[in-house]
Amino acid sequence: VLRAALVSTGHEVLRGDTPNTNASWLARRLTAEGLLVTSSRTVGDLLEDVAEAIRGAAAEADVVVVTGGLGPTEDDRTREALARAAGTPLALDAAAWDLVRAYFGRLGREPAEVQRRQALLPRGATALENREGTAPGVLGAALGRPVWLLPGPPREMRAVFEAHVVPSLRGDRRREPVAARVVRTAGSPESEVAAAIEDLMRGSEPVVGTHPDDGEVAVRLLARGEGAPARADAAAAEVARRLGPAVVSREEDVRVEHAVVSLLRGAGTTIATAESVTGGLVARMLVLVPGASEVFRGGWVAYSDEWKREALGVPEDLLARFGAVSAEAARAMAEGALARARAGIAVATTGVAGPGPDARGVPEGTAFVALAVRGRATEAKALRLAVAREAMQRRTAVAALDLARRHLASSP
Amino acid sequence: VLRAALVSTGHEVLRGDTPNTNASWLARRLTAEGLLVTSSRTVGDLLEDVAEAIRGAAAEADVVVVTGGLGPTEDDRTREALARAAGTPLALDAAAWDLVRAYFGRLGREPAEVQRRQALLPRGATALENREGTAPGVLGAALGRPVWLLPGPPREMRAVFEAHVVPSLRGDRRREPVAARVVRTAGSPESEVAAAIEDLMRGSEPVVGTHPDDGEVAVRLLARGEGAPARADAAAAEVARRLGPAVVSREEDVRVEHAVVSLLRGAGTTIATAESVTGGLVARMLVLVPGASEVFRGGWVAYSDEWKREALGVPEDLLARFGAVSAEAARAMAEGALARARAGIAVATTGVAGPGPDARGVPEGTAFVALAVRGRATEAKALRLAVAREAMQRRTAVAALDLARRHLASSP
Repeated sequence: VLRAALVSTGHEVLRGDTPNTNASWLARRLTAEGLLVTSSRTVGDLLEDVAEAIRGAAAEADVVVVTGGLGPTEDDRTREALARAAGTPLALDAAAWDLVRAYFGRLGREPAEVQRRQALLPRGATALENREGTAPGVLGAALGRPVWLLPGPPREMRAVFEAHVVPSLRGDRRREPVAARVVRTAGSPESEVAAAIEDLMRGSEPVVGTHPDDGEVAVRLLARGEGAPARADAAAAEVARRLGPAVVSREEDVRVEHAVVSLLRGAGTTIATAESVTGGLVARMLVLVPGASEVFRGGWVAYSDEWKREALGVPEDLLARFGAVSAEAARAMAEGALARARAGIAVATTGVAGPGPDARGVPEGTAFVALAVRGRATEAKALRLAVAREAMQRRTAVAALDLARRHLASSP
Repeated sequence: VLRAALVSTGHEVLRGDTPNTNASWLARRLTAEGLLVTSSRTVGDLLEDVAEAIRGAAAEADVVVVTGGLGPTEDDRTREALARAAGTPLALDAAAWDLVRAYFGRLGREPAEVQRRQALLPRGATALENREGTAPGVLGAALGRPVWLLPGPPREMRAVFEAHVVPSLRGDRRREPVAARVVRTAGSPESEVAAAIEDLMRGSEPVVGTHPDDGEVAVRLLARGEGAPARADAAAAEVARRLGPAVVSREEDVRVEHAVVSLLRGAGTTIATAESVTGGLVARMLVLVPGASEVFRGGWVAYSDEWKREALGVPEDLLARFGAVSAEAARAMAEGALARARAGIAVATTGVAGPGPDARGVPEGTAFVALAVRGRATEAKALRLAVAREAMQRRTAVAALDLARRHLASSP
């Protein structure tokens, strides 16, 4: 097993002003590369704190990855902290200085004198090219363990990690064979998903867990050791078999909106949206998918009853009789959007995001989604969601798109 | 100075499957309460790792706050880890068991036998009521320093923190007087905001920094020590004075959409939206504001040229001549929405989110926003945004709402 420990630096991270997305990203990438992440430390910009964190990390792991503090200012003390942790002096490194100058050269400029700081490395350390910014990465050592210093801006951190750290790690035989898989689901609550695969979740090889993920539920699997890919594939196939029509995809980046756009393109048809409680979220999810413009006719945000009547033609007596938060209203909205947009299918949402019940006493967290399809009865689905306003809207939007996904996936 | 160290537990966090939002939240809250957060550690679920992290944290700080691992299953070992770190045995705590039973009682149920685990505390520790879940918090000690154990689910963590940790900290005289302030801005890039307050950002008391925040730029100020509130107020007033019309609010929770809804209510008028590149985001930002339904007439998501003509009446020859991504198209969309929705004002967005330029060669990152107001010339603003697709859409939506905000704020 190859053990990795993470160190993040910076007072902004430590004060909570900046969320520590680097640590989460590195943890996931290192795990996927077959390392075991043992701990993650965050410290401020004080030299001794950073040095102590590097020593602590090197004492417990085989590889240390540090982010942040490689800029040209006095607050950027990670190079110096590594020198202190390693007990070696800092010195101007000619190769590092060449990298800094080359980066500025590509921009048609000369580096300022202050940038020399970025070329001061602990003796014996190596500078790593950073194609996304001025700060070279550094490979040094502490307590005889390799210590990688990566820049703090996520884009630069990722670039240096992929270009230098990954190729080096891949040569290490202590790395465990590991295989990560995902089965994405929509339209079923997490408790139902978990119940269907409870026995698999109790096992430890592979590790199987359910993760609520922006309105969907992702089942993530991680197998380790000899034969990991085969075990992970077999378990993922079994998860997918049990979850059946709830399965959206087996790819991390293919969510319900991607599935809907790709199914619409395959079927050569189009979609329109009519949104009340989600207020434009369904439309936004669709347009975030590249290529959506070919299949997305357009949409309405009809938050008020007045607008539901005027823009979508929802009958006034229907609203009076059933209320705007009802299966009937959701169906009428979807049918209005279908007809007015001359689309192949249309989805609609209505609900009470709260706080508190609506004027008719419909409780917070109630929502209805509907799907209208040409030449087919319009279907509606009721939801009861005990989550905060924004999450409630997200789940409602996913449920609406999921109606479309299930219809399109089951159509010949 | 009262020093705090954080420990987060859980393999899901360490593998990067779950982002560590608890640590960021606690860091910010503790800083705002006048503590100095010295470090933050994340470890897995292994007993010895958690115990070692608690000992390490207690060695360097005056107060330790641990999150996660308080559930009823075998993976939940934080109580046991604290007992090991403190060198005391675990025992069933009657008060803790009463809290678990009371929680289930409120749901009309009895706790299962497995829930007894949640009442096993290190000797001398105190159970803390958790009104949001079954796991009581715990106040114990290690190396003579108080150690707070909080549940992992963010809602429960926050509830126990506010109900128990905050009142206790407030009694501690070592806490430094501290004052945090924010000045939120919109419509100016971060570089411009920073340039206007560069001298204040170079100082260290108060600490002044700019933070890009979902399309806006927040200037955060933190003063410490004797007279902190007065210094923070004076500096925040100076920041606000220099940034002038770009200032949205001086409250963390009042963003451009909140300002727009409140200004619309004050003026007794209404808004409509016509969105292309933002695909419903402007509408969604508005409806996330409680009370938006009184002032938001409704909106269109008009992603395709066809739809811009049909739904909003944008003239075909205008689109042919200037293209859909142009100041002219943005103005026509806003005017179409204003007329069709019979609203007081209307905003519109159009742009190229990429990847790559549009069919007419308009480069990725180009956007136009427009504001139409009854009886007034329609204004448009051009944006050039070198950020990824989603961030580009967010900034465009903020820019559109900011046009409305500046107009409403300057109207008598």
